[in-house]
Amino acid sequence: MAATETANGKAGETRQRLLDAAQDLFVTKGYHGTSTREIASRAGLSPAAMYVHYPSKQEVLFQLIDHGHREALSALATAAASSDDPKVALRAAVFAFTHWHASHPGLGRIAQYEFPYLDDENHEKVAATRVEIDRTVRRLLEQGSRTGAFALTDVRMSALAILALSIDLVRWFPSRTISDPDVVAREYAMIVDRMVGA
Amino acid sequence: MAATETANGKAGETRQRLLDAAQDLFVTKGYHGTSTREIASRAGLSPAAMYVHYPSKQEVLFQLIDHGHREALSALATAAASSDDPKVALRAAVFAFTHWHASHPGLGRIAQYEFPYLDDENHEKVAATRVEIDRTVRRLLEQGSRTGAFALTDVRMSALAILALSIDLVRWFPSRTISDPDVVAREYAMIVDRMVGA
Repeated sequence: MAATETANGKAGETRQRLLDAAQDLFVTKGYHGTSTREIASRAGLSPAAMYVHYPSKQEVLFQLIDHGHREALSALATAAASSDDPKVALRAAVFAFTHWHASHPGLGRIAQYEFPYLDDENHEKVAATRVEIDRTVRRLLEQGSRTGAFALTDVRMSALAILALSIDLVRWFPSRTISDPDVVAREYAMIVDRMVGA
Repeated sequence: MAATETANGKAGETRQRLLDAAQDLFVTKGYHGTSTREIASRAGLSPAAMYVHYPSKQEVLFQLIDHGHREALSALATAAASSDDPKVALRAAVFAFTHWHASHPGLGRIAQYEFPYLDDENHEKVAATRVEIDRTVRRLLEQGSRTGAFALTDVRMSALAILALSIDLVRWFPSRTISDPDVVAREYAMIVDRMVGA
């Protein structure tokens, strides 16, 4: 599966091949356990040829993590905006966010586990997306609290708990017994429904 | 803070120093990003002197991960056995498991994130502890479901969701705004209370 959207032409294909190679290696051995040489070699390039496309291993890491966060936010935000009823919208949002993580456990794992290894500037860019993910859930919880649809003691902690469910999937999904993104997304949406008192 | 219980005597102190050094390095750079030489050097030893205590970097990783899992299970199981009332026991169990992860985010992070890097034999040993952690929560949920204290659609998925809350803390705890293990443990215990329909 493509790690990021395919850019047009030969250069785009090569960049995609580099990102796919880096994703496989980072999942297997982590960012610090992977060398630039290995990424280039797995993509069928020399290290020098790789530098034409990405100036550093750090830049490859940023591309993957930034892409992963944007895609997850996009899935969440689209679902959150799908209804004016906060109950319905939250259920859709949890389903979508869970489904995204269950469908992209490799990219999701890099996005979460290698995030601390981003340089300051890259860290700040991705942190902005993380804040927006958090805000999207909090807005729904605040809306539902105002209308009385939800009964929460702490909106901030509830948002963290809801996001934790989906994000924790990158640690173990799929398992031998649970491997269908639809099943886990549906179940987590129901669990959150109960959690918020909807 | 000591990564494992301190063994008696000079050799025990040295081993503890090696484990502490390895824990700091694995948290910062991951298992594959850390060399045996760095661990030894941070503990004030030569690589050869380190091998007297641990035959390999893998053995150090296993000691940390095995210890982390046993401590987390111990906190969980003790709390789960503290009451015959499944509602009370579950609340205590979630509080204890959350509190352990919030109090040991470094060791907890290694236990979770570096777990896939254990050799087959070590992996199997720790997997047994993980199964027991899962079973401890499931037993409470099954007990409460029988007595009617809980209303669950899926015990297995509910157990995974409950454990996800605590375990996800190793990813971000403490944050700028949330840094008290008591606060997060209390809030997550209440959230789970609602989640299970208790």
